[in-house]
Amino acid sequence: MKSTAGSDAAKQRAGEAAAEEVTDGMVVGLGTGSTTAYAIKALGERVDSGLDVAGVPTSFGARQLAIDQGIDLVGLDEVDRIDLAIDGADQFVVETGDCIKGGGAAHTREKIVAAAADDFAVVVDETKLADELEYPVALEVIPAAQPGVETAVETAGGTPRLRQAANKDGPVVTDNGNLVIDCAFGPITDPKTVALELVEIPGVVEHGLFVGRTTTAYVGTEDGLNVHRY
Amino acid sequence: MKSTAGSDAAKQRAGEAAAEEVTDGMVVGLGTGSTTAYAIKALGERVDSGLDVAGVPTSFGARQLAIDQGIDLVGLDEVDRIDLAIDGADQFVVETGDCIKGGGAAHTREKIVAAAADDFAVVVDETKLADELEYPVALEVIPAAQPGVETAVETAGGTPRLRQAANKDGPVVTDNGNLVIDCAFGPITDPKTVALELVEIPGVVEHGLFVGRTTTAYVGTEDGLNVHRY
Repeated sequence: MKSTAGSDAAKQRAGEAAAEEVTDGMVVGLGTGSTTAYAIKALGERVDSGLDVAGVPTSFGARQLAIDQGIDLVGLDEVDRIDLAIDGADQFVVETGDCIKGGGAAHTREKIVAAAADDFAVVVDETKLADELEYPVALEVIPAAQPGVETAVETAGGTPRLRQAANKDGPVVTDNGNLVIDCAFGPITDPKTVALELVEIPGVVEHGLFVGRTTTAYVGTEDGLNVHRY
Repeated sequence: MKSTAGSDAAKQRAGEAAAEEVTDGMVVGLGTGSTTAYAIKALGERVDSGLDVAGVPTSFGARQLAIDQGIDLVGLDEVDRIDLAIDGADQFVVETGDCIKGGGAAHTREKIVAAAADDFAVVVDETKLADELEYPVALEVIPAAQPGVETAVETAGGTPRLRQAANKDGPVVTDNGNLVIDCAFGPITDPKTVALELVEIPGVVEHGLFVGRTTTAYVGTEDGLNVHRY
């Protein structure tokens, strides 16, 4: 489910612009994915130049990259608030700022970090833009609940599919030890209602719909950058 | 948080009455706690007499008791539906059938089993009855989300408290590897709204409010049994 479309140049413009928002003394949420990686690298360069920040990674991958870049890390349970969380998206609607995440199966921790952040900056290239969200919505699911969740998703009008692993037999297992079920709904005209339906299913830990959380979006294009504020 | 009030005789009457509902060929959800244990024991006696059932346990404890009683077990992911789930409650409102569970920290799997069941039978003694739910609501929480969840619970008007373990240093860790935060709200006049608020907090896996799920309640008293159907 991992989307890798979009040019490196566009992703880099988006990631670097978000990293420029960071100021001295901030606690910064560090997201997961190829576009956010550019933000983390840019932040690392600013740290080399003397910027004082503490990073809260959203995944093993983000953590390792931040360590490689020399960014000081802090546990989510050690800080009261995060000043700014920077993260990517699999699909993003400019008009509303709503997005779908979960391609990297890290969306539970990504949402926990986003919820703890005063500002949430989404970094995407223009291939992630859509008029309506229609990318499959990833659910993180307690393993025993898989059949019941699939039935409930079908009742809600979706088509569930257990995400299979690569480099490991069987399904993807998340950093929290759970399964991922990707749910195709077609175009989602009312993300808030779908989000509520999904979160109420017993055994669903978290879903990949991020509704009403974005405060700034950095959209990298082939030849520039568009910034949207919410 | 485990409530152990209520007489053994009252609990036994409730548990045994629920076990009587089970018929040949049923898949039965086996709950957790001292009252449900009487149902499992009674079911074991009926299995000894030739009843053919398959049990789906909600916890390590329920599983071990069922094995001891000679009840065949089946995985939640091996059955399409559960015919009848039998489980206890920490507090129960007769008028609505709503209850609070989670004293045993097994409420996530208990709710998954209840959601998969055509019928959900609650077994309690009369000390568990209340006019309004006001028992602290247990949240199962992804460990990294603890501070953010506590803040969100306070915003929702609750007082959160991380549940501490006995026979182990530090907090309780659930069968799923998560933490439990008990949230005191005082009397809960609108359980459905509180349930929605709790389930929307990122990092909350499941909460202990069971709203609109009960189909039958068996309430054991000092000298008898009351049965309520919903």
